[in-house]
Amino acid sequence: MAKSNKTAGPEARLPKGFQDTPAGDIRATERMLATIRDTYERYGFEPLETPAIEFTDALGKFLPDQDRPNAGVFSFQDDDGEWMSLRYDLTAPLARYVAENLERLPKPFRRYQVGPVWRNEKPGPGRFRQFMQFDADTVGTDNIAADAEICMLAADALEALGIQRGDYVIKVNDRKVLDGVLQSIDLGGEANASRRLTVLRAIDKLDRLGEGAVRALLGRGRTDESGDFTPGAGLGREQAEAVLGVVTGAILHPDGQTATGLKGNPTLEQGFQELAEISRLVRASGFGAERIRIDPSVVRGLEYYTGPVFEAELSFEVKNEDGHPVRFGSVGGGGRYDGLVERFLGAKVPATGFSIGVSRLQAALAVLNRDKPAASGPVVVLVMDKAELPRYQKMAQALRQAGIRAEMYLGSAGIKAQMKYADKRGAPCVVIQGGDERARGEVEIKDLVAGAKAAASIKESKEWRESRPAQFSVAEANLIAAVRDLIARQRD
Amino acid sequence: MAKSNKTAGPEARLPKGFQDTPAGDIRATERMLATIRDTYERYGFEPLETPAIEFTDALGKFLPDQDRPNAGVFSFQDDDGEWMSLRYDLTAPLARYVAENLERLPKPFRRYQVGPVWRNEKPGPGRFRQFMQFDADTVGTDNIAADAEICMLAADALEALGIQRGDYVIKVNDRKVLDGVLQSIDLGGEANASRRLTVLRAIDKLDRLGEGAVRALLGRGRTDESGDFTPGAGLGREQAEAVLGVVTGAILHPDGQTATGLKGNPTLEQGFQELAEISRLVRASGFGAERIRIDPSVVRGLEYYTGPVFEAELSFEVKNEDGHPVRFGSVGGGGRYDGLVERFLGAKVPATGFSIGVSRLQAALAVLNRDKPAASGPVVVLVMDKAELPRYQKMAQALRQAGIRAEMYLGSAGIKAQMKYADKRGAPCVVIQGGDERARGEVEIKDLVAGAKAAASIKESKEWRESRPAQFSVAEANLIAAVRDLIARQRD
Repeated sequence: MAKSNKTAGPEARLPKGFQDTPAGDIRATERMLATIRDTYERYGFEPLETPAIEFTDALGKFLPDQDRPNAGVFSFQDDDGEWMSLRYDLTAPLARYVAENLERLPKPFRRYQVGPVWRNEKPGPGRFRQFMQFDADTVGTDNIAADAEICMLAADALEALGIQRGDYVIKVNDRKVLDGVLQSIDLGGEANASRRLTVLRAIDKLDRLGEGAVRALLGRGRTDESGDFTPGAGLGREQAEAVLGVVTGAILHPDGQTATGLKGNPTLEQGFQELAEISRLVRASGFGAERIRIDPSVVRGLEYYTGPVFEAELSFEVKNEDGHPVRFGSVGGGGRYDGLVERFLGAKVPATGFSIGVSRLQAALAVLNRDKPAASGPVVVLVMDKAELPRYQKMAQALRQAGIRAEMYLGSAGIKAQMKYADKRGAPCVVIQGGDERARGEVEIKDLVAGAKAAASIKESKEWRESRPAQFSVAEANLIAAVRDLIARQRD
Repeated sequence: MAKSNKTAGPEARLPKGFQDTPAGDIRATERMLATIRDTYERYGFEPLETPAIEFTDALGKFLPDQDRPNAGVFSFQDDDGEWMSLRYDLTAPLARYVAENLERLPKPFRRYQVGPVWRNEKPGPGRFRQFMQFDADTVGTDNIAADAEICMLAADALEALGIQRGDYVIKVNDRKVLDGVLQSIDLGGEANASRRLTVLRAIDKLDRLGEGAVRALLGRGRTDESGDFTPGAGLGREQAEAVLGVVTGAILHPDGQTATGLKGNPTLEQGFQELAEISRLVRASGFGAERIRIDPSVVRGLEYYTGPVFEAELSFEVKNEDGHPVRFGSVGGGGRYDGLVERFLGAKVPATGFSIGVSRLQAALAVLNRDKPAASGPVVVLVMDKAELPRYQKMAQALRQAGIRAEMYLGSAGIKAQMKYADKRGAPCVVIQGGDERARGEVEIKDLVAGAKAAASIKESKEWRESRPAQFSVAEANLIAAVRDLIARQRD
């Protein structure tokens, strides 16, 4: 709405990167979160809520030579000058919580947390400054069975949400595999950090571009279809083949136990052993490779993880509004990290976890459930006679007590505007009682869904009015039963 | 935990006025919110979520001659210098949303919203800087039936939460009644603002101190039991009796239609008419005076409301930990206000609403449900033999698939520590399978609840060990049925 001239007041608007959430999205998200919660609870995870605000230094966002928190977080000073910030993820508050309560927590400690996080970054399309995360972490054990459990948890949660087996996969890799292969081709050490990054970026493209393109990117570089040239990592042929052999699973796939010359590297060895152990554990619990799959090409959060890493991918294709096929891809991921509380306590506490991108997963579920009918609006009891408000209110209340969403029209407009209002509300029907119906002890019920269909097929306005499509009378005593039947018919 | 000497890192702690929420409270709050949501949905209210951050001027927290937002809110500057703040309630964001979307919203617009709000105020006992609110508002109608509906909504929500009829009451008053009586005793106008405030504060104490004390506070003043003197409003005898007559309901109680000399004041008249209309509407829908009661003594948010005001009170008494009786009192309130979007659009849009203090209501429900068993921890499958992890994991998974919370022990400790862990987790039982049981195709189940009872009654450690109380073997194939029976027995 245009700003009124009557006032010099502020404009009604949100800062960029923030959004209001409409009713349908809220309801769908609530349903989704309840299902995930239920799965996580069954796995013995406990809910935790931490506040939105933490001390900036507890979030780890103070650089030693700065007297303001670094960019990326929303920060403000308390009365005594201490800096506080809005949390930018749910892991930093978990670290603070675990460090603060380590003695009294059961070990290992399984917790889940869902809530908004904030990033003080430049917003863009699909890039918000407030968004939801749903994290599950197991803290205080280096048992690889904890990582296997996280993979099972993720797979079970996706199926509980109605995603069919075969339409998703939990991909598992181990950071030690990638570290080991880089060491074995002499790319270890500080001096090779930037080349390692180029190698990892190339591996990350395997899924999208295929083996040939990655081979080029590991070597001299690649020219894409548009003619742009991307410089490569400059690996020799043998180095590149070693990397490719590991990440494509041709060498020593842990499910298959193939052995090669790379086997001498102890880091790589340990990585493969961990993957084999995860594989053994999840298979024993009945999770096949179509649900949880070892995939040495997964490159995820490498600056952070220290062992197994996970990626939850949706593999089904959908058509977007232009009819083009789209894959949703990753809807969550995680892995093992040891540095959780080190900053506070000076000691390592091993942990492993998994984080769901709530709005991304919600978008995928919305597509999957596209054919299912949306939640219906309330039945609207029209006000034909203002002196009879108590009577109309009583009808609405009787419907509500029977578990049917219902409201009495509360505005001051006439019958035509009331019908328009009922349409806008998505009402399944309206309930009408004028003086004549009241005298007969009856109510009129007008089916708005059937009415809209009939209106589409009837051209003549006079014919329309006379036929009164989808409108019928019932005794007032039968109001609830009649409305319930009508709603059931609409859902068939 | 004491800060470790090993590190010069930050201390793990929260800023004052913020708190972590433990698992039990989160689960109870989720259940409560789901029930309230369900009631509000049935009344045709739609959910809305707005972000935590708004422009400071949209929240109305800028004074014209200041270049910083006033105190009370957490604020920070965006890159372009614009001030943003964390919302301090859910009404200011609703005003911004309605002003921004007025044209396309159905009118009236019913919405509910639940979420945290933040106050940059001095924290104290029970006074937090982040807390939850649950609001329902109807925007865009001056129909008094909207106010009646809000009262019914509040009453139905409290009963849906398990609060018995008679244990709560929705008290209703009208700001026009108080305005009218103050006008009629010549306390209108700017000059009398401070005396009006003293009168209103006195009325507010009627419930707690009784009629005599309020009479004194309306007159010269009152000396309490401790000898402290509170100066009064200095009203004459007739003035004080007029006020008392109205607020105690002795004069013109709208349910009873008693008339007096005060009847000439048109504001007072209109207030009583509105209360009578609310009474008529709610009674017609079957809400008796034990649920929704007109109470002219209710003084609520007077700087803000323009018509009916509501207060949801819990009237039952409970014993606190010292055995003293405590009443919970108000758990929510609201009323009609016309200034919602005026600041943005220059025009008045009438609105009425109700806000629940989530943690206060939750505390009351916790007392009401004190006798009911708390949610149980997960079944813990012990690890007797590390080589058999897949077998134990499979047992845990089978229990989960049967809908039973279950986990495999993931730490590295021995059997004694594992039992201690299971106790700490609140496990109903542990599942044990060593080599002998495995050879026999059996598992041992140890009932921790029955075990704790038996331990309390058995003194001799030897006798204890030999009797193995509450421990029994079942065939591995019968694990799920046996655990399910055991949990059902514990809940009886």
